[in-house]
Amino acid sequence: WHAADLLSKASICELIARVQPTHLYHLAWSASPGAFWTTPENVQWMESSCFLMDEFRRTGGLRAVGVGSCAEYSWQDGGVLSESSTPAVPFSLYGRSKLATGNYWAACSGVGQCSAAWARLFFMYGPGCHSSRFPGVVIDAVLNGRPARCSSGRQLRDYIYIDDVAQALIAIGESSVQGPINLGTGMPTRVLDLASRAAEMADGLHLFEPGAIPDHPENNPDSLLACIDRLRFEVGFRNFTPLEDGLVQMVDWWKRHRCQLDSLAPAGISP
Amino acid sequence: WHAADLLSKASICELIARVQPTHLYHLAWSASPGAFWTTPENVQWMESSCFLMDEFRRTGGLRAVGVGSCAEYSWQDGGVLSESSTPAVPFSLYGRSKLATGNYWAACSGVGQCSAAWARLFFMYGPGCHSSRFPGVVIDAVLNGRPARCSSGRQLRDYIYIDDVAQALIAIGESSVQGPINLGTGMPTRVLDLASRAAEMADGLHLFEPGAIPDHPENNPDSLLACIDRLRFEVGFRNFTPLEDGLVQMVDWWKRHRCQLDSLAPAGISP
Repeated sequence: WHAADLLSKASICELIARVQPTHLYHLAWSASPGAFWTTPENVQWMESSCFLMDEFRRTGGLRAVGVGSCAEYSWQDGGVLSESSTPAVPFSLYGRSKLATGNYWAACSGVGQCSAAWARLFFMYGPGCHSSRFPGVVIDAVLNGRPARCSSGRQLRDYIYIDDVAQALIAIGESSVQGPINLGTGMPTRVLDLASRAAEMADGLHLFEPGAIPDHPENNPDSLLACIDRLRFEVGFRNFTPLEDGLVQMVDWWKRHRCQLDSLAPAGISP
Repeated sequence: WHAADLLSKASICELIARVQPTHLYHLAWSASPGAFWTTPENVQWMESSCFLMDEFRRTGGLRAVGVGSCAEYSWQDGGVLSESSTPAVPFSLYGRSKLATGNYWAACSGVGQCSAAWARLFFMYGPGCHSSRFPGVVIDAVLNGRPARCSSGRQLRDYIYIDDVAQALIAIGESSVQGPINLGTGMPTRVLDLASRAAEMADGLHLFEPGAIPDHPENNPDSLLACIDRLRFEVGFRNFTPLEDGLVQMVDWWKRHRCQLDSLAPAGISP
C-alpha cells in the first residue's frame, strides 16, 4: 500500500517515480451525495487525473483503467446509451469533468506503449452504500423505523451490484479495450421495484411511501440504460449478480453495520 | 508580441505570469498536411493546451477561445454535424486530441470567472493555403502548367473563407458562448465545383482531371456539413464571403506569392 494525495502534482510525481507502476486503476473522485454534481473539486480531479495519466505513461505504464459515468452522456432523451452513437453532452460539471478526463485518457491510449480504458459506470448498489444515497437511504430509513418517502420510482435505470463492478473493472483491465466502455448489466430495473423489494427485505414495506414526494423535473428521463456490447463481446464479461441476491447482501450488510449509525439521513428520497 | 514555446510548461508559466492575459486565443497545433492525422505531437499539444488553460484561468483569465475541428465528430454517417446531437467519436488521433482538449476547456468554463468557447472548424480555404493542401494544390498545379489529377470530388463539404474564420473567431471571443461551437458557413459546397472553379480562375481548366485518382475509401462520407445554429443565433455571426469572391482572392494571392514556389507538391490530389 502506498498513500498519496492525488490532488497534489508533486505527490503524483513522487508516487509514480517511486512505484513505477505498470498498471493503474484510478477510482478517486469527489462523489459526495448531493454535492458531487456541481462541486468545482471535480475540475481539480480532472486536472489531476490527466496529469496522473501523463506521468504514468511517461514512466513506462502499460495499462490504465479509469472510472467515468453514465452522466457523461446527454440525458435529454434517455433510452439505451451507447459509447458510439449517443451524444456525450453532459448536463453537469461532474459529467463534463468525467468526459474530458476520459477523452484525455483515450487520446493518450495507444500512443507509445500505454493503453487505457474508461469505464462509464451506471447505477451501483450494494454493501457500503452511503446512507443518503439510493437505495441505501430506503433501507436505512425502514430499519430505523422511519418512513421511506420516495418519488414515483417509475424510471428505468441500469443497476449493477458493487461486486460485479469490481469484477468487471478487473476484466476490463486484463483486456485490451481502449476508450469509453459502458459498465452496467444491460438490464432495466424499475426504481420502484428496487426500492420496494429493499424495503420488504428490511421488514419495512409498511414504511415505504412511493409517490410521497414529486419527481425531479430535470435530467430525470424515463429510462437510462446501458448498451453493454463492448463489455459483453470485447471484454467477455457477462456474469451478473441477480438483483434479488445483491439486495439480500446489501440489506444483510446494513443490518450488521449501518443500522443505528448514520440515521440522520433525510427522509425525502428522490432516486 | 510575446514569443513562447507553448510545448514547454515552464515557458507557459513564465508567459502567463508575465503577461497576465485576460483574453486567450489559442490556435497552435500540429497541422502539417498528411502527417497531422496521426502524429503523436498532437497529444503533446493536448497536454500543453490543457495546461495553458489551467494557468490562464488561475492567473485571472476571463475569456478563452480554442480552435477544434469537425474531425472531433464521428464521420461514420456524415450529413449535418451538430454540437448537441452528433456523437463525438473521432476516428483519428488528431480528432481525439482536439476533442479531449475542447472538453477539458469546456469543463473549466464557468468554474470561477473564466469562460471558454471551442470553435470546431470545418474546411477552410483562402490565401496562405499550403501548396499540398486542397484546394491550393489544384491552383498550384495548373498555375505551374502541371495536370491537377483529382478524385471524383462528388463529396459535399462546408468550405469557409479564411477571413470569415478570423472574423467569426473574434465574434465568438466577444460573445459569452461556452463549449463547442461549429465554425462553418452552414452551406454545402461540392468539392468538384470548388476545384473546377479554382482551376478555371487560374486559367487551367484544361489541366483539371477529376476522377483521375480513386476516392479515399475510409472516413470520407458523401457529406460533412455544419449545423451553425450556435454561431448564427448565439453569437450572431452570419455574414459569409461568397465562394466565388473567396476563390478570386485566393487565386490572385497565389499568382502574386506562390507561383513558381513550392511547386514540388504531389500531382495526385484526394480532397
